[in-house]
Amino acid sequence: MTSRPSPFQLARRAERMNPSIIREILKVTERPGIVSLAGGLPSADTFPVEAMREAAARVLTEAPREALQYAASEGFAPLRDWVAAHLNEQQGMDVSPAQVLLTTGSQQGLDLAAKVLIDEGSRVLVETPTYLGALQAFTPYEPRIEAVDSDHEGPLPEALARAAGTGDRARFAYLLPNFQNPSGHVYSEARREAIVAVAREQGLPLLEDSPYGDLWYDTPPPRPLAARVPDSVIYLGSFSKVLAPGLRLGYVVAPPALYPKLLQAKQAADLHTSILNQRIVFEVLRTGMLETHVPAIRERYRRHRDAMQAALQTHLSGLATWVKPTGGMFFWLELKPGLDAMALLPRAVEAGMAYVPGTAFYAQSPQPNTLRLSFVTAPPDKIEAGIAMLAQVLKEAA
Amino acid sequence: MTSRPSPFQLARRAERMNPSIIREILKVTERPGIVSLAGGLPSADTFPVEAMREAAARVLTEAPREALQYAASEGFAPLRDWVAAHLNEQQGMDVSPAQVLLTTGSQQGLDLAAKVLIDEGSRVLVETPTYLGALQAFTPYEPRIEAVDSDHEGPLPEALARAAGTGDRARFAYLLPNFQNPSGHVYSEARREAIVAVAREQGLPLLEDSPYGDLWYDTPPPRPLAARVPDSVIYLGSFSKVLAPGLRLGYVVAPPALYPKLLQAKQAADLHTSILNQRIVFEVLRTGMLETHVPAIRERYRRHRDAMQAALQTHLSGLATWVKPTGGMFFWLELKPGLDAMALLPRAVEAGMAYVPGTAFYAQSPQPNTLRLSFVTAPPDKIEAGIAMLAQVLKEAA
Repeated sequence: MTSRPSPFQLARRAERMNPSIIREILKVTERPGIVSLAGGLPSADTFPVEAMREAAARVLTEAPREALQYAASEGFAPLRDWVAAHLNEQQGMDVSPAQVLLTTGSQQGLDLAAKVLIDEGSRVLVETPTYLGALQAFTPYEPRIEAVDSDHEGPLPEALARAAGTGDRARFAYLLPNFQNPSGHVYSEARREAIVAVAREQGLPLLEDSPYGDLWYDTPPPRPLAARVPDSVIYLGSFSKVLAPGLRLGYVVAPPALYPKLLQAKQAADLHTSILNQRIVFEVLRTGMLETHVPAIRERYRRHRDAMQAALQTHLSGLATWVKPTGGMFFWLELKPGLDAMALLPRAVEAGMAYVPGTAFYAQSPQPNTLRLSFVTAPPDKIEAGIAMLAQVLKEAA
Repeated sequence: MTSRPSPFQLARRAERMNPSIIREILKVTERPGIVSLAGGLPSADTFPVEAMREAAARVLTEAPREALQYAASEGFAPLRDWVAAHLNEQQGMDVSPAQVLLTTGSQQGLDLAAKVLIDEGSRVLVETPTYLGALQAFTPYEPRIEAVDSDHEGPLPEALARAAGTGDRARFAYLLPNFQNPSGHVYSEARREAIVAVAREQGLPLLEDSPYGDLWYDTPPPRPLAARVPDSVIYLGSFSKVLAPGLRLGYVVAPPALYPKLLQAKQAADLHTSILNQRIVFEVLRTGMLETHVPAIRERYRRHRDAMQAALQTHLSGLATWVKPTGGMFFWLELKPGLDAMALLPRAVEAGMAYVPGTAFYAQSPQPNTLRLSFVTAPPDKIEAGIAMLAQVLKEAA
């Protein structure tokens, strides 16, 4: 066979796609012996293995034909009921099961919302920094993504109002009020009200992403934005952090007017989410196990968080600043000006630890002196060792 | 709360999305008492329930932490190996595991290929009729979809060459050589060679979809197009028909030059496909169970096919024409001119049976006197009864 050039011509959007820098970093750093504080993997010790095994056996004994057949694109009805009831009871929302769409992880929720709302050149507002996976989900639809100035309580309301009121109407603002990946920020009650006021006044739609809402370690976060301006919010939730990410199970809650389009996008994307997995998760949930399981996860991660805070205070004072997160999975560090986290990563790996440089999390104007540390994957003694190694690298570079 | 108009502005592509007509029809027709020959649901009697239950128990006992954790976007490595070996041994292909991307059903393969290859206004060529789910996957990316004249052996090579050589270069031709949904057609060896020659001469990329390739009832189909011009073909396969659709597990085989972009699109779409399901399926496959399971499915569906063929000959001679399918799941009927399958559907449902009108399967110039009958879901005696009812409706209308 003669070698010929590929006949495939890529779509313009494909030229914009890039390999996930985090996945590339993880390939290098997740090798034995490295203390990785890079990946955002939930601790496998938190997976309810016993409950999953029993639930799988029960589903495949009691309803195998239904669990293995094609199913509704909307999702498994009892699980939609559960999600609505859970959000109404726990989050002060007012959701009907008819607004719940089960998705293949909440990453799919990001893709579907983007697919339905973004035209080429549409303006989309994001936090500074923001979740990298969302940038990857939005980018193929060719929006203009604009970073809104943010502090440790989220985007600044005046900056959000300015961005919403300037130029073309933004299609949505993508917001993570609870323990954001990567910054760990949580919106205060006052900040939530201020942002909701902007949304109301400017007619600004919101895409609220809350994968970490249940992972609070001090006090529960205030009510979601979706509980305050429900008609203006698409809300994304996930079972990845409270049960297990390998199942790829999340959900979208959409205003009734928007739901049919998201459903059609879902049908086109993968027909429906694995009904076997949906039924297994429902079997686990119906027992009420989250009521004890989630507090146990909180207790574990709080210890990890405290270990990292103590290690940072011991080793990194004067080299970096950070705000102790009150939930979620991450510390966000700002290094002394002049230090470049990307450039220093090879030295850190050589020293025996890994982190994620912060630049990947910026839609605009990346800050090279930032980095993300995960405290959930490594045990507390490894956290302490990893932070000590990081301190050594920074001292040598400073 | 005052009622306000929705602040959400839909993307242009969302305006083009429509509810699946088949799903709407199924809602009406899949009620108790109706003999439904409409849905393309595999017979649940073919699901290897015992093997699935054992595999799930084994995976959740032997590797629960890995089966519940985040995993590689490419898919589970042993399953990628299995797919490559299977295609090489059974289909005469020459595939490396590095070309295999596990997907959330082969519907996701359609979405990813479209996402990576289609710009607004790009030309995409399809068969006449073609698979409705593919039209739904492509449409959100706003291509111009052009139907190529086809007969019972697939698209006419001259028509394909003409379409490929006219106007802008087509981004790809979407082809289903094996027992197409809905027409049941299979490309002959000669037709495959003729189409491959067109692809070579015109530099026309192909998207080859083969969910039904293993479901042959008389003789195995000729080698895939991907075995003949591998650099020009993205090949889609599925476990939905040989194991179970509820798992949502399929795969894409891509030329190496194209693979990284499909992988990035996959990451953005749902990070990865449920690793629990991938491991369960691999556990089932590694035992070699397909070697006996697939022949058993063939045997069962052959009986169904023969029952429908007999019933059609008995009841519909003179009212419709069809080609007896040699594989797959469907008969495709052309009714006497003047009969409108969509208009007659309510009468058929009233009479106690259901089918899918053919118009939904046309990208252009729908033929109202066509309809699709599935022979896999209902048992042979119901098939006979359903066809008799259909005949009565057609006789009254003719």
